[in-house]
Amino acid sequence: MTDEATRNDRHRAKMQRIQAARRDMMESRTGEKGLLIVHTGPGKGKSTAAFGMAVRAMGHGMKVGIVQFVKGAMATGERAIFDAFPDLVSFRPMGEGFTWDTQDRARDIATARAAWEEVARLIADPDIALVIADELNIVLRYDYLPLDEVLAVLTARAPMKHVVVTGRNAPPALVEAADLVTEMAAVKHPFRSGIKAQEGIEF
Amino acid sequence: MTDEATRNDRHRAKMQRIQAARRDMMESRTGEKGLLIVHTGPGKGKSTAAFGMAVRAMGHGMKVGIVQFVKGAMATGERAIFDAFPDLVSFRPMGEGFTWDTQDRARDIATARAAWEEVARLIADPDIALVIADELNIVLRYDYLPLDEVLAVLTARAPMKHVVVTGRNAPPALVEAADLVTEMAAVKHPFRSGIKAQEGIEF
Repeated sequence: MTDEATRNDRHRAKMQRIQAARRDMMESRTGEKGLLIVHTGPGKGKSTAAFGMAVRAMGHGMKVGIVQFVKGAMATGERAIFDAFPDLVSFRPMGEGFTWDTQDRARDIATARAAWEEVARLIADPDIALVIADELNIVLRYDYLPLDEVLAVLTARAPMKHVVVTGRNAPPALVEAADLVTEMAAVKHPFRSGIKAQEGIEF
Repeated sequence: MTDEATRNDRHRAKMQRIQAARRDMMESRTGEKGLLIVHTGPGKGKSTAAFGMAVRAMGHGMKVGIVQFVKGAMATGERAIFDAFPDLVSFRPMGEGFTWDTQDRARDIATARAAWEEVARLIADPDIALVIADELNIVLRYDYLPLDEVLAVLTARAPMKHVVVTGRNAPPALVEAADLVTEMAAVKHPFRSGIKAQEGIEF
């Protein structure tokens, strides 16, 4: 046998072992449940991955509700696409801006409260399969909403309701309550080299 | 002054300082360039965030080309949405399956080569603003493509061309060449509790 043929045989045998192990693993996973998903950490992609999940769910005809707790210049790109599917997705930017822009704590708290009530309404709506509370962690971090109240609503959701919460500094109790938690770490960021936020990339 | 009024004043003063610091920081960032972006790490959201970036760019009327190096059951949801925008996005699942499913190294290499040539074609196409090489890191990890050749094409791209490469185990030389690198870390994963991949969430 040639060296190449030997290598291919070894590869095939190894892949057969991996395939069998993966099949066993997949077969052991039979449960279904609505997931509480958290995207946190200082890196990019927390909201973007949540919006990507919205697109995935919409592609299956599942209805999605998105509430943004912090409205920046973000997501104008996504919004244009979501607007093409009004039956599948509601998209509500309910924040008024970053806390350093409003400079009004009482107003920020009232805004957070209104956004949270919309999230709670979406979670209670049996037609909505996936609820995204974008940047909820930020307002929790500032204590603009009582964490206990938020956790009570999240954990009392219907069995098949999926909820995604984004934002850096997820509270430990939320991580504890969640089914799936991903931390986005910034290995390298172009802002450090003087590159500005660019259309289609950052917003 | 009441305690609450004092607290609000302190909040406002602090937020004014943060706002000024952020304005200085933003004004120092004036550069524009096509970014080489890498989503790596063992956590979720690498491909999902890349597809979310596709949606964002499409929302600005930018054209996007997506090539998948590993075709699994993934992204059927996204595909249904992308199919609604044929002028804005091309979506090519060129992989044949996981390496443990094909069990044929020579065929995997030929598949990787064909997918890479499609990526190189998209990068060379001046109409395409954003190219996503989904799971390219996987085939680089298996040495199915020469890393030098891949890096040469990526770094010689046109100045405003954005490229996103996904997949765990990004080669260090790719991280070195990239402008923006995010590592997705798995803090908690529901597979560990016997939950299977679910429609609208995993695929």
